[in-house]
Amino acid sequence: MTAYDIIMKKRRGGELSEAEINQITNGYVSGDIPDYQMSAFLMAVCFNGMTSAETTALTMAMVYSGDTYSPSAELGDICIDKHSTGGIGDKITLITAPICAACGIFVPKMSGRGLGHTGGTIDKLESIPGFRTSLSHSEFISVIKKAGFAVSGQTGTLVPADKKIYALRNATATVDSIPLICSSIMSKKLATGADGIVLDVKVGDGAFMKNYDDALALAEEMIAVGKLAGRKCTAVLTDMDKPLGKAVGNAVEVIEAIEALKGSCPDDIYEISVTLSAEMLYLAGKGTPEQCKALAEDALSSGKALEAFEKMIQLQGGNPDVINDYSLFGTPLYTREVISECDGYISAISCEKTGLLSLELGAGRKTKEASIDPTAGIVFSKSVGDKINCGDVLGKLVTSAECDLDEAERRFKGLFSYRENAPEKKSPVLKIIRS
Amino acid sequence: MTAYDIIMKKRRGGELSEAEINQITNGYVSGDIPDYQMSAFLMAVCFNGMTSAETTALTMAMVYSGDTYSPSAELGDICIDKHSTGGIGDKITLITAPICAACGIFVPKMSGRGLGHTGGTIDKLESIPGFRTSLSHSEFISVIKKAGFAVSGQTGTLVPADKKIYALRNATATVDSIPLICSSIMSKKLATGADGIVLDVKVGDGAFMKNYDDALALAEEMIAVGKLAGRKCTAVLTDMDKPLGKAVGNAVEVIEAIEALKGSCPDDIYEISVTLSAEMLYLAGKGTPEQCKALAEDALSSGKALEAFEKMIQLQGGNPDVINDYSLFGTPLYTREVISECDGYISAISCEKTGLLSLELGAGRKTKEASIDPTAGIVFSKSVGDKINCGDVLGKLVTSAECDLDEAERRFKGLFSYRENAPEKKSPVLKIIRS
Repeated sequence: MTAYDIIMKKRRGGELSEAEINQITNGYVSGDIPDYQMSAFLMAVCFNGMTSAETTALTMAMVYSGDTYSPSAELGDICIDKHSTGGIGDKITLITAPICAACGIFVPKMSGRGLGHTGGTIDKLESIPGFRTSLSHSEFISVIKKAGFAVSGQTGTLVPADKKIYALRNATATVDSIPLICSSIMSKKLATGADGIVLDVKVGDGAFMKNYDDALALAEEMIAVGKLAGRKCTAVLTDMDKPLGKAVGNAVEVIEAIEALKGSCPDDIYEISVTLSAEMLYLAGKGTPEQCKALAEDALSSGKALEAFEKMIQLQGGNPDVINDYSLFGTPLYTREVISECDGYISAISCEKTGLLSLELGAGRKTKEASIDPTAGIVFSKSVGDKINCGDVLGKLVTSAECDLDEAERRFKGLFSYRENAPEKKSPVLKIIRS
Repeated sequence: MTAYDIIMKKRRGGELSEAEINQITNGYVSGDIPDYQMSAFLMAVCFNGMTSAETTALTMAMVYSGDTYSPSAELGDICIDKHSTGGIGDKITLITAPICAACGIFVPKMSGRGLGHTGGTIDKLESIPGFRTSLSHSEFISVIKKAGFAVSGQTGTLVPADKKIYALRNATATVDSIPLICSSIMSKKLATGADGIVLDVKVGDGAFMKNYDDALALAEEMIAVGKLAGRKCTAVLTDMDKPLGKAVGNAVEVIEAIEALKGSCPDDIYEISVTLSAEMLYLAGKGTPEQCKALAEDALSSGKALEAFEKMIQLQGGNPDVINDYSLFGTPLYTREVISECDGYISAISCEKTGLLSLELGAGRKTKEASIDPTAGIVFSKSVGDKINCGDVLGKLVTSAECDLDEAERRFKGLFSYRENAPEKKSPVLKIIRS
């Protein structure tokens, strides 16, 4: 079959065989199939979708385009990975990975950088002085062996197919397609080789998936692909209609994570962290879901998770003293405290706009090549549901960049919506789907 | 708006503005928009279609990518063009253009070469010794002025956008889309600038449009675009479920056209030629449809159309003696007469397979660069509906190429289907749509 025939078959709504999917994927990665044929193919996939078998074939073809790892073979015990589809203020990895490590399972976490309004775990950790995220594979394994987990950037040869295909999708309006998103995420998860994967699928204004049904469809497809690829997967749908926790940025989010590990954090962070950790422990066979939840809570309250986090920082070259001295993160040049001019209950905090404002303050990167300001960000004093009186502090904006703070304050105030009565509290965990 | 936004708008089913269509078309032709964005856009068009306003905007953007002509201004009288969507054995231009010229209207015919199983008028005419199809514009106008019509290949600067877009569509499985087909055809017709256009839309196994509904949709879209562009258009849907006439090839088809101009031809050729000529004359204001039909029939029976054809051949450098001496076309090296082994009525002659067999014999080109054998082709002795007895001559295969004639004979016999009773005769003219 030629590339033309494969494109036409997908355009006509046919189901491609594994051999056909391998041909177009491998051909594209090798350069035999040009960009213009691949982009036409991807657009046809956007319209006609893919079956789970096709998506699995695409995912596996992508996996084998680069290096693959088997960390459990190297570590001699089960490894569980965790992935978030990305949101605003998402520092959950910094809490769940040490919880799981403290409970005796290995978490080999390869993570990405932020782009646009969403942050990346790697960027956040690099706000710790000395912290290195570019580990060699043997360093990565060695840190996991000693601390129970490690967080490293992705190596250049991990799923090169995804890099190439994603860049093309990003230029051709073919990003938002469930099988393509699924194969992009799952190829990286499968290549890094964990035995089980817990997927935190964010839903809402600040997430990639804006509505519940799309998020559910993506979650189910990722579980189906994981299953066909022989891995245990659990998906947890969590709310991203408001920023997660109170801090959005880099150092400010690491500090919030440390506070959480010390036992003090907003309810949403606690609930999502414990739920995801429990699901990871459950996949590792640590007991019933209830037992695993108790284990996770104990790891937090006992301080063992914090110990694991401290050890990991030290092993990855960071200064562990940051845990007790937040001034070591550095001090932003400018701080603007924002005072409320309204009375009422906060009914909503616009999530995507929070991410965009944080980006504007220097906490994110507008282009792949841009550098970030580790001290910049937003720290909310209030959350959705809180009662506000005129004159209360709503939060603060921090930055070392020369940006228009008056304009930033105006935008910050615009993030909030109010109502007269207290809104109903909702759990940030919307659904758990076990395979 | 960026190219990305335009692709996304079309992907989401939105209607693009004229400015947006100009932007993507002109950007692609200039090279600012890369192949991979254009192919994603074209695939989105295949799925979501275009409104007539969008198709017209695309067509006009393509028209203005190159030179445009106004032959009626140069010739001082109305010019009518004719276009066929392509079929097997389609020599109708060689009959209608001289008929119309004989009736006093100008026919500036720019024509294409054949590719694959369909032939091109230019290739057919080049089987006449000395005949030149690469005319300069002034030569083209001069021939029309003297003979009433001319047939020339397209110049390099006529609708370069179509050339570039068509090549991309051909590589990305985005050819069969009504707005894209329509803009490709109509851009060339509008750029060459005739006042009225008669479109012969072929329907059936040997045509681009395999079924009546698709052909009707294409015809209606071409008429809509012509109207929006201020031209008079008529579409005639004609049957292409069997080869047109009895000859398929190059010299053999020119000979069949000459025979038609002499008054002797199969019914289907006569009916289609007279119908199309009448519609061309009607668009030129030569009378009622009935009067125009009578004019066309008279041009044929009086020999005036043959005279116009002879004059055109002479003016384009060809040897006009071919009209009375077919041996001047040259003699094929091999002729294979095929004898029937069946009794019955011919119920069908497979049309696309006829084209492919003719291609195999050397009458067509498999690639754009291939050369053709002007003497090669197929001449049927019998048509659909004819009674056949075992031992009757079904037709002959002619070629100068070293091909497997036994295999060709086997394939030729396989073109025919038989039945016990005479099938009902159907008119090859399926529908006439006047704007």
